Amino acid sequence: MAFQLTVDDLPDLVRGAALLGTGGGGDPQIGRVLVAHALGERSITILSPEDLDDDALVIPTAMMGAPSVLLERLPRGTEPVDALRRLEAQIGRPASATMPIESGGINSTIPLLVAAQTGLPVVDADGMGRAFPELQMETFAIYGIDGSPLAIADERGYTAVVDTGADNRRMEAYARAVTVRMGGVGYIAEYAMSGADVKRTAIPGTLSLALRLGRTLREAREGHRDPIDALAEMLPDTLYRHGSRLFTGKVVDVDRRTEGGFTRGVARLAAFESDSSCEVEFQNEFLVARVDGQVRTVVPDLITALHLETGEPITAESLRYGQRVCVFAIATPEIMRTAAALEAFGPQAFGLAEEFVPVEHISAPLGGGA
Amino acid sequence: MAFQLTVDDLPDLVRGAALLGTGGGGDPQIGRVLVAHALGERSITILSPEDLDDDALVIPTAMMGAPSVLLERLPRGTEPVDALRRLEAQIGRPASATMPIESGGINSTIPLLVAAQTGLPVVDADGMGRAFPELQMETFAIYGIDGSPLAIADERGYTAVVDTGADNRRMEAYARAVTVRMGGVGYIAEYAMSGADVKRTAIPGTLSLALRLGRTLREAREGHRDPIDALAEMLPDTLYRHGSRLFTGKVVDVDRRTEGGFTRGVARLAAFESDSSCEVEFQNEFLVARVDGQVRTVVPDLITALHLETGEPITAESLRYGQRVCVFAIATPEIMRTAAALEAFGPQAFGLAEEFVPVEHISAPLGGGA
Repeated sequence: MAFQLTVDDLPDLVRGAALLGTGGGGDPQIGRVLVAHALGERSITILSPEDLDDDALVIPTAMMGAPSVLLERLPRGTEPVDALRRLEAQIGRPASATMPIESGGINSTIPLLVAAQTGLPVVDADGMGRAFPELQMETFAIYGIDGSPLAIADERGYTAVVDTGADNRRMEAYARAVTVRMGGVGYIAEYAMSGADVKRTAIPGTLSLALRLGRTLREAREGHRDPIDALAEMLPDTLYRHGSRLFTGKVVDVDRRTEGGFTRGVARLAAFESDSSCEVEFQNEFLVARVDGQVRTVVPDLITALHLETGEPITAESLRYGQRVCVFAIATPEIMRTAAALEAFGPQAFGLAEEFVPVEHISAPLGGGA
Repeated sequence: MAFQLTVDDLPDLVRGAALLGTGGGGDPQIGRVLVAHALGERSITILSPEDLDDDALVIPTAMMGAPSVLLERLPRGTEPVDALRRLEAQIGRPASATMPIESGGINSTIPLLVAAQTGLPVVDADGMGRAFPELQMETFAIYGIDGSPLAIADERGYTAVVDTGADNRRMEAYARAVTVRMGGVGYIAEYAMSGADVKRTAIPGTLSLALRLGRTLREAREGHRDPIDALAEMLPDTLYRHGSRLFTGKVVDVDRRTEGGFTRGVARLAAFESDSSCEVEFQNEFLVARVDGQVRTVVPDLITALHLETGEPITAESLRYGQRVCVFAIATPEIMRTAAALEAFGPQAFGLAEEFVPVEHISAPLGGGA
C-alpha cells in the first residue's frame, strides 16, 4: 500500500516520530526543515515492506551522534546522500530504496531527505520501532542482518567505511569513535539488506504510525479534547497495544552531559499536589522511569515526555526546569521483547539493574495514572 | 640498485631502524620475529626509488597506535596484508610494491612482513627518515600526496577505510579514533602513490641506512671499539650529516602514560659525576632533550637513547630506572627542515614552546658531549 508523502504531512509525521523517539532521535524540527527545503512541491513515495521485490536492495540511512550536538552543528544536508553513495560504491550496486533505522525526530526524516534528493522511495518500516542510542540495537541485527559495511559521512564530504563482519557491536564502537572525531555527529548508511530481509526483520508501518500519532495529537488539540487521552485511546488499535500515563508534574532538575558521543543524564519531576516524584534516566533516549523510587517503565518499552496541555513530545535535550509534563508509557511491539531482543536492548544492555517487566503489568491501566 | 634481504640481515636492520625511530616506532624485536617467521629461507627484494616505474603503484604499510599497547597485544601477523588488500580493493588496482611510512623498530619491518607474505618488493625509502607519532607528519603529505584513502585493519580481520580527501590531519584524527577502539593498535595502508611520486617526495635509502647503522654498532662492539664513537664517525657520510653525544648518565625517573592512542611522558637522567641533569619529553618518539634546563635538541632532529656500553637503542616504552644511557642527537635530512616540513612536524606541531634550531648549532661538535 504505497502512498505519497508531501510537505504538508511533515508536521504530523515529525510529531509522531518524536513521540516514538522516546526523548531521543534528535530535534524533530531540524529534519523537518531539511526535508521541506529539499522536497518543495514534489512528493516522496512511501512503500510498504510488502511492496518490495525480494531481491531489492534497501539501504537504511540515519544520523549518528549526540542529539545535543546536533542542535549546535546543523547538517549541510548533503551528508546522508554522501553516506548512501559511499555504501553503494562499496557494495557495487545502487539502492532500490532507503529506510529509517529507528523512529525519532531526526532519524525518521533523514531517509525522507535522501528520498527528496535522490528520488528513491522510502520503506514504511524501521529496525527499532522507537529510538535507541546504539547501532547494534536493531531488529535487523537480532534477526541476522549484518550492519557492515557501514558508511559514515561528515559535512566536509569526508567518509569512512567500517566493516566488522557479523560483529555489529564493534561496528557501533568503530563508527562511534569516528562520529566523535567528526565533531559529535555523523551521517550513516548501514544494514544494507534485501527486500525479503526487510519483510522478515523490520518493524512494519512505523512511518505511517508516526503520521497517525502526530495527527491524533493535533486533531485532539484542534477539537479541544485532551491530546494525551486521545493518544491512550488510539494505541490499543496499533502494533504497540498499550499506552498509559505514568506521572504528571513539573520538571525540577535536569542533569545532562555529552559523553562518548551520547547525551546522558537524568531528569527529575515533582507532582503538582503531592510529595510524589519521578526520575527518568536517559542515554539519548529515556531508559527507565521510576515513580517514588519504584520502576514503572523500563527499556525496551517506550517512555515519552509530553507537554501536559498540548501533548507535544519533548526530547531529552529539550527538557527544562519548570516544564509541565506528562510522562507517558507505551508498550513495545512483541518482536522487541523476545529473549534475543532483550539481550540486545533490554535493561542490562544499558547497565541498568532492573529486570524487564512489560509496562502493562506494572503501570496503571490504560488512560489512568498519577 | 635492488638488493635481496634475508633473515640474517634482520638483527642489524631492526637495530638501526630502532635508532632512527628516536624512541618510538614500536619494539624492534616484535617486527623482527614476525618477519623471520614469515620469511623463512626466502629473501625480500628491496628496490631503490629509482628502480620504480613512474606509473608503479606503491602502497605504504604500517602499524598505528601506542607502542606500549603493542607490547601487550601482539599482532596476529595478518593485519598489515588485510589493510593492503582492503586499500587495493578500494583503489581498484593491485600494488606494485610496499614501503615504510617511517623508520622505526616495528614500522621498518611491517612492509617486510607484507613482502614476506605477498612476494611484493619493498621500496628503500620512507616518509619521515625517522619516526613521528602522527600520520600527517610525512614528507609525502608535505610535498602534495594525499594520505587518503587509508585502510585500517585489526587482528579480528575487521577494517575501516577513511577518506578525507586532501585533509591528512583529519585522516589521522579519524583513523586514530578507530585505532583506539580497536584496542590501541591498528594496521594501516595509506599514501598510495606512483613511482614518480616516491622519487619526488620520499626520503631515499632509509632501509639500507638502518642496515648500515645497525651493522656499525654491532661491528664496533665485536671489535671492542666504542659503538657510540663508531656511530658518530659514520653519520657525516650519510644524508643525516651530523651526530653527537648530548648527555651521559643514569635514568632516575620515567613518567609514562597511554593517552589518546599515544605513549606520552618524560624521562629524567642524572649525570654520573656531576649535578648535571637531562630531561627528555616524548609522544611515542623523543621530542625534545633539555640539559640543565637548556634545549639541546628538538624535533624534527633525532634524539636517541643508547645503552652506554652496547650502543643498543632504547625505546621510550623500554626506558627504566637505573639504565646507563647516552642521549645521542642526529641532524635530520634537509628535506625535513623546510618551512612546510617544520610546520607539519616542528616543535610547534607538538605544542612545544621552543623554536627549531638545527642540532649542529646548539650541541657539542661531532663526537663530543657531556
